[in-house]
Amino acid sequence: MREKLYPTNRLEAFSDGVLAVIITIMVLELKVPHEDGMTGLISIAPMLFVYLLSFAFTSIYWINHHHLLRRVEECDHRVLYANLGFLFSISLLPFFTAYVIEKNNDSFSVALYAASMIFTAFCFFLLRLAIARLLRRTDSLNPEDKATERKHILSLALYIAAIPLAHFHPHLALGAITLVTIIWVLPAMGMKKTAMD
Amino acid sequence: MREKLYPTNRLEAFSDGVLAVIITIMVLELKVPHEDGMTGLISIAPMLFVYLLSFAFTSIYWINHHHLLRRVEECDHRVLYANLGFLFSISLLPFFTAYVIEKNNDSFSVALYAASMIFTAFCFFLLRLAIARLLRRTDSLNPEDKATERKHILSLALYIAAIPLAHFHPHLALGAITLVTIIWVLPAMGMKKTAMD
Amino acid sequence: MREKLYPTNRLEAFSDGVLAVIITIMVLELKVPHEDGMTGLISIAPMLFVYLLSFAFTSIYWINHHHLLRRVEECDHRVLYANLGFLFSISLLPFFTAYVIEKNNDSFSVALYAASMIFTAFCFFLLRLAIARLLRRTDSLNPEDKATERKHILSLALYIAAIPLAHFHPHLALGAITLVTIIWVLPAMGMKKTAMD
Amino acid sequence: MREKLYPTNRLEAFSDGVLAVIITIMVLELKVPHEDGMTGLISIAPMLFVYLLSFAFTSIYWINHHHLLRRVEECDHRVLYANLGFLFSISLLPFFTAYVIEKNNDSFSVALYAASMIFTAFCFFLLRLAIARLLRRTDSLNPEDKATERKHILSLALYIAAIPLAHFHPHLALGAITLVTIIWVLPAMGMKKTAMD
Repeated sequence: MREKLYPTNRLEAFSDGVLAVIITIMVLELKVPHEDGMTGLISIAPMLFVYLLSFAFTSIYWINHHHLLRRVEECDHRVLYANLGFLFSISLLPFFTAYVIEKNNDSFSVALYAASMIFTAFCFFLLRLAIARLLRRTDSLNPEDKATERKHILSLALYIAAIPLAHFHPHLALGAITLVTIIWVLPAMGMKKTAMD
Repeated sequence: MREKLYPTNRLEAFSDGVLAVIITIMVLELKVPHEDGMTGLISIAPMLFVYLLSFAFTSIYWINHHHLLRRVEECDHRVLYANLGFLFSISLLPFFTAYVIEKNNDSFSVALYAASMIFTAFCFFLLRLAIARLLRRTDSLNPEDKATERKHILSLALYIAAIPLAHFHPHLALGAITLVTIIWVLPAMGMKKTAMD
Repeated sequence: MREKLYPTNRLEAFSDGVLAVIITIMVLELKVPHEDGMTGLISIAPMLFVYLLSFAFTSIYWINHHHLLRRVEECDHRVLYANLGFLFSISLLPFFTAYVIEKNNDSFSVALYAASMIFTAFCFFLLRLAIARLLRRTDSLNPEDKATERKHILSLALYIAAIPLAHFHPHLALGAITLVTIIWVLPAMGMKKTAMD
Repeated sequence: MREKLYPTNRLEAFSDGVLAVIITIMVLELKVPHEDGMTGLISIAPMLFVYLLSFAFTSIYWINHHHLLRRVEECDHRVLYANLGFLFSISLLPFFTAYVIEKNNDSFSVALYAASMIFTAFCFFLLRLAIARLLRRTDSLNPEDKATERKHILSLALYIAAIPLAHFHPHLALGAITLVTIIWVLPAMGMKKTAMD
């Protein structure tokens, strides 16, 4: 007996809704400083940077999710649950972002922040597997997937490296996390130029 | 005179929006602990567990809602109102989740949490009736509905049992609620394996 | 020169999103009581009632909005702006709901709450006019509109009556507001029965 | 090798979700005043005005975004990233709105508020460029774009003027920002009249 399949449109709409809320409520964690004028603004600069990092992280996952889901038109229960698992993992990001902000980027909170990113990467990997399983039944996996996979492994390595790094130098660990963002955003920009010229 | 029918797409979009916000704003109830390091993280572990439980609860309802609504393409006013009633009931979840968290899982708050889940189960049951009424006019109810119904009755029984249980042992009551989640998630995983092999 | 028209799908999606967030963030205004056990729950009962009222109010507008917008497939700039005006007016509801809750239903806050509902009713009326203008160009206004219009005028009268009433007896004013909700929900339920039998 | 293109529907849905959340969570920044009665309401009037301003600002961008995106049916990675950049810039608005509200419209906070609007205008300009690049490949840019561009430049000039103005007279600076809103809303209303008569 073949299992029932669901069209992915509501899955996409729900995921878009959850990701839109996640990316936006993080701004509620930013607190207006007590000091007036420029002093106040400078005191919250690290907070603003962490917010930018979390926003970029969620954005990149939205693009990857978009990229992944457009290849299937229907999905099974396994994909539904794997997707909910991924949304759960990324829904913790605003909390761990608040953690880092309130603890002023101390070692432990930066390590937690990196660990939460690894957890999200792992859940996204499970979703990727669930989708690949569906694809194997219908069309073949294309070579471009290899390049993306390599990028995912590199990202994961950097997140994992950030945890012990946070113990000695929290800002360097944040730097490693920032590097992941750059790895994803920059080539996308460059690729376009090559494709155009 | 036949009553006017509405296409369900906006109903689905609105429900997805409300459920996406509900599932995500619960993260705002998680408070960063005062203690630094691992002690702080351990102190909030029960909170994180309740958050996971509420996330799973809302997820399962989203899947059930998805499953239910895809069987109709148009709905009447009764379905619109029953759906809003269901959304109201589930919108109380973040509040009762915060209740349990702030009261440190005491008997009364866990009983309230279970009661709020029963209320949601009851409202979803009304929505199910309203949809079944529409289906009877167009196509026949399929046998698979019986299995789902049995699962709904079992869940309800566990939620109801959780209320007196909370009086004597709040953690056992939370265990009963967790069991409901497992009843829904596990077979879905298993079913897939069978369907594949 | 004929003005450009926009398909209404994004207008509907955006409105659904805004209404979904409005209806859900109101739950954040509910505060867990300090008292443990039943005493605590009883102390927040009026708050829960006001939340139910605001939820019902927003729901009814969502249904009316749904009903109104489905009659046009394209809209002009005037409709876009009238719709944003309506969304602005209803976005104030969570604030005035919080107002009533924090001020323990005192005369002034209940009057403000009613005034905010009148403001929303007025903005929805402007949106209705903007849509009617479009409809006049394409198809004719149907007779059913008359019945809805009468219901809108009755609602407005009750909201306006609630303002002076709030001065003498805030709870009676809340009763008048509740009555409006019943006027909208009950006949919809009854109508169905008639249509079925 | 031609680059892959994405349909814009999910981009629109995600942007609608983010903008819907941004526009609505700002209401959470409004705090119920301590004073009872009319005194309390009057004390929060400036806050309500800033909220109206931010709501109008976001609304106008939603309309412009709507207007821009409907001209393309597919987009490339550059548009995806430019759009996320735009969403990031506008997601800061609730924070800078809270800033102005908490600092009681002092010079520095009003200047920051204007600066955040300039940043959004700049990011929207980048999105506009990315879209124009796609359009050049498919259809021609229409003359109406020129008029909109002139309006964008005028808005930018007023925002930039608001920064030094805020130093001497914060309320005048808020006036300049209000003027931008009027420039966008009024002609849209007038245009309709002309088109109709």
